[in-house]
Amino acid sequence: MDKTRVAIVGLGTVGTGVARLLLDHGDRTARHAGRTLWLEAIVDRDTRRQRDVDLPAGLLTDDLSRITGNPAIQVVAELIGGLEPARTIVLELLRSGKDVVTANKALLAEHGAELFDTARALGRSIAFEASVAGGIPIIANISQCLSANQVLSLRGILNGTSNFIVTKMEEGMDYAAAVSTAQRMGFAEADPSMDVDGTDAVQKLAILAHLAFGARVHWRDIPRQGINTLHLADMRFACELGYRIKLLAVAELTQGVLELHVAPTLVRMGTPLAEVREAYNAISVIGDAVGPVFFHGLGAGQMPTASAVVADMIDTAVGRTGITFRTLELWSRREARVGIRDHADLKGRFYLRFTVEDHPGVMAQIAGVLGRHAVSIASIIQHEPDPASDGSLVPLVIMTHMTTEGATHQAMQELDRLPCVMPPSVRMRVLDRSES
Amino acid sequence: MDKTRVAIVGLGTVGTGVARLLLDHGDRTARHAGRTLWLEAIVDRDTRRQRDVDLPAGLLTDDLSRITGNPAIQVVAELIGGLEPARTIVLELLRSGKDVVTANKALLAEHGAELFDTARALGRSIAFEASVAGGIPIIANISQCLSANQVLSLRGILNGTSNFIVTKMEEGMDYAAAVSTAQRMGFAEADPSMDVDGTDAVQKLAILAHLAFGARVHWRDIPRQGINTLHLADMRFACELGYRIKLLAVAELTQGVLELHVAPTLVRMGTPLAEVREAYNAISVIGDAVGPVFFHGLGAGQMPTASAVVADMIDTAVGRTGITFRTLELWSRREARVGIRDHADLKGRFYLRFTVEDHPGVMAQIAGVLGRHAVSIASIIQHEPDPASDGSLVPLVIMTHMTTEGATHQAMQELDRLPCVMPPSVRMRVLDRSES
Repeated sequence: MDKTRVAIVGLGTVGTGVARLLLDHGDRTARHAGRTLWLEAIVDRDTRRQRDVDLPAGLLTDDLSRITGNPAIQVVAELIGGLEPARTIVLELLRSGKDVVTANKALLAEHGAELFDTARALGRSIAFEASVAGGIPIIANISQCLSANQVLSLRGILNGTSNFIVTKMEEGMDYAAAVSTAQRMGFAEADPSMDVDGTDAVQKLAILAHLAFGARVHWRDIPRQGINTLHLADMRFACELGYRIKLLAVAELTQGVLELHVAPTLVRMGTPLAEVREAYNAISVIGDAVGPVFFHGLGAGQMPTASAVVADMIDTAVGRTGITFRTLELWSRREARVGIRDHADLKGRFYLRFTVEDHPGVMAQIAGVLGRHAVSIASIIQHEPDPASDGSLVPLVIMTHMTTEGATHQAMQELDRLPCVMPPSVRMRVLDRSES
Repeated sequence: MDKTRVAIVGLGTVGTGVARLLLDHGDRTARHAGRTLWLEAIVDRDTRRQRDVDLPAGLLTDDLSRITGNPAIQVVAELIGGLEPARTIVLELLRSGKDVVTANKALLAEHGAELFDTARALGRSIAFEASVAGGIPIIANISQCLSANQVLSLRGILNGTSNFIVTKMEEGMDYAAAVSTAQRMGFAEADPSMDVDGTDAVQKLAILAHLAFGARVHWRDIPRQGINTLHLADMRFACELGYRIKLLAVAELTQGVLELHVAPTLVRMGTPLAEVREAYNAISVIGDAVGPVFFHGLGAGQMPTASAVVADMIDTAVGRTGITFRTLELWSRREARVGIRDHADLKGRFYLRFTVEDHPGVMAQIAGVLGRHAVSIASIIQHEPDPASDGSLVPLVIMTHMTTEGATHQAMQELDRLPCVMPPSVRMRVLDRSES
């Protein structure tokens, strides 16, 4: 049987999972690739730490030239994470003639164009299934399986940490307790800021928007809000209204222009995206031929991510990745195929929550400001004041009819200056059944 | 730009959809394939009927030699359906040097080995994404995206017609009315027997079991029960117990042996498979590395199926299909990689419904027979007799603990002979939350 020599750079959690699949399940890759994927070297700066895999003697080294200097190695998985030295290492791997597989979404979102141009110039390929949604093969599905479609809409829960935290908040935990629980259970890092502020989700969205729409947009230019501003009160009101709050990453084509954003969003209960729990990821894609397709799976974790990396290594070894890479012209510096809609022009329904003084005339003032900004009210929740509180301030929740980001944003700014409103007020997008 | 000449045999509903994608959206296939897919000929025995696509003059013909005799045509979609003349035509296409794309699950389930052996011998390929689950790209996902996994379990709602009918029955329609509604709305054919008796689902299951487990099993040898025996009473009892009834196709590896069956099954409400409505399909796959992955989409219909066919045509034109076809050794006559578990040994929980005489001692007799067959009772529903009925016969519903197909089957045969039981009794499998 033919043999393709492969290597791993970065023996952390995912790297260890990849090593286990290659070393312990060689029969499987042989069967699915028609050839042996022979793990020739693993490079990590720490060669002493114990890992949960039995490594043959001499496999692990801290010397990258064991890979770059060995022309027999054809495919290398970069699993270091972060921007540097990952970027430099990927460039070195490409220049030494290796095809690269990576799980590093930050690297692609930041340096995709440079890396892909380099790979193209050298006749090499980069595969990156594991960079978005872990075990859900969304990259292959968009770039191959749905290739007869114009994708119209793409809505995803792409950050498992955030989804775990909002699931716990729905069960009644406050934000801080939910974050601690996520950390204790291994679903959040010691510093979870890239997850909870939406950075991770928006980087993945940039990659998907690139693939599905030919968008050329930097992740920093995509409007982004994380779950770190969520209040338990909003989870409760959403529930009362028949919604769950999810951190949604959205890319949507309307009249040939692309809308992009990441934001906590009220999603109607009973729809597939609303029912995604714990650390799961999900993506709802609408194609103009295929209609709606929904994918659900584990978005992170050692073995789900390793599953995606090894599938890419197999695809690269047999030659499928090379074909896809050449035909798709990913991250080329060509002109974008779509324009990006100004965030202020994004249409939608909104959930607004104000903390207001409990006296006559307040509702009229608020309704007046909304009316002047052409924000029409669909429903209102105002409960009796909590008898335990002093009763002078009460929450007021308003669901709007269709309006725009810009109109609601401006109305909120004006409302927060009213003497009867105690800022900051809360504003979230709403996704209804017909749209989800 | 490079050009790949392609053709279609069979201009029915799906063929028309494929023609529309190729003719009206050539830019799209050019972008995703890096080449033009040029529709060179369409063959159908009926060249006069009006179709919902604008065909350039001279494209449509009833002469297959316009394709087989034209060496410039490389890829042909066979969209006739049925066994003959589809089989003969596919063989002719392969022998004239064409790569074939097909949506014909019956053909593959019946003649897969012959067709694939012929294609291999001739150095050609057969792609068949559209043959299972229409718009859900389950073939590519199992054979490529999840290739680092040993699939452990595969559970699918693979027949949209049946799912539409059970959804209507859940809403209170009886079976006959639900079938008429499905026919009126275009979700069932004039003769829906292949759909409602489980044949269609079991043929698709045979293809998936082949791909995911290397099983070599003929679809006729897979135990199969359709929805044509479902009673409204069972839908209601299932609902009362917190379940929905779904026609599930199941392939599951336990201790290295494969369990295969298609049967109406009680699925716990709130789990993803239970919430699949109308004519949708869904597949839940568990891989040993990736964990659970869930796919949901339209399993039939013109454009979803055409989407899968055109994706296959693109994959074939660019060369990916050829690689997959060579490495996977599909339908080869090699030994099966797994044994198939005897149906009688299948473990599970069961829903049993009896029509019994309403007098003392009946429950003791039934419990006695079940006990002798080691079938343990988990719960019982027996309501007060309907005052409108004469009250002499009442339904008795029993949910069992874990037992086997064989034990419950034998117990039921004995029970149906008791004087206090009015046959036929009903027996269905139960899928609980932990398993789904």
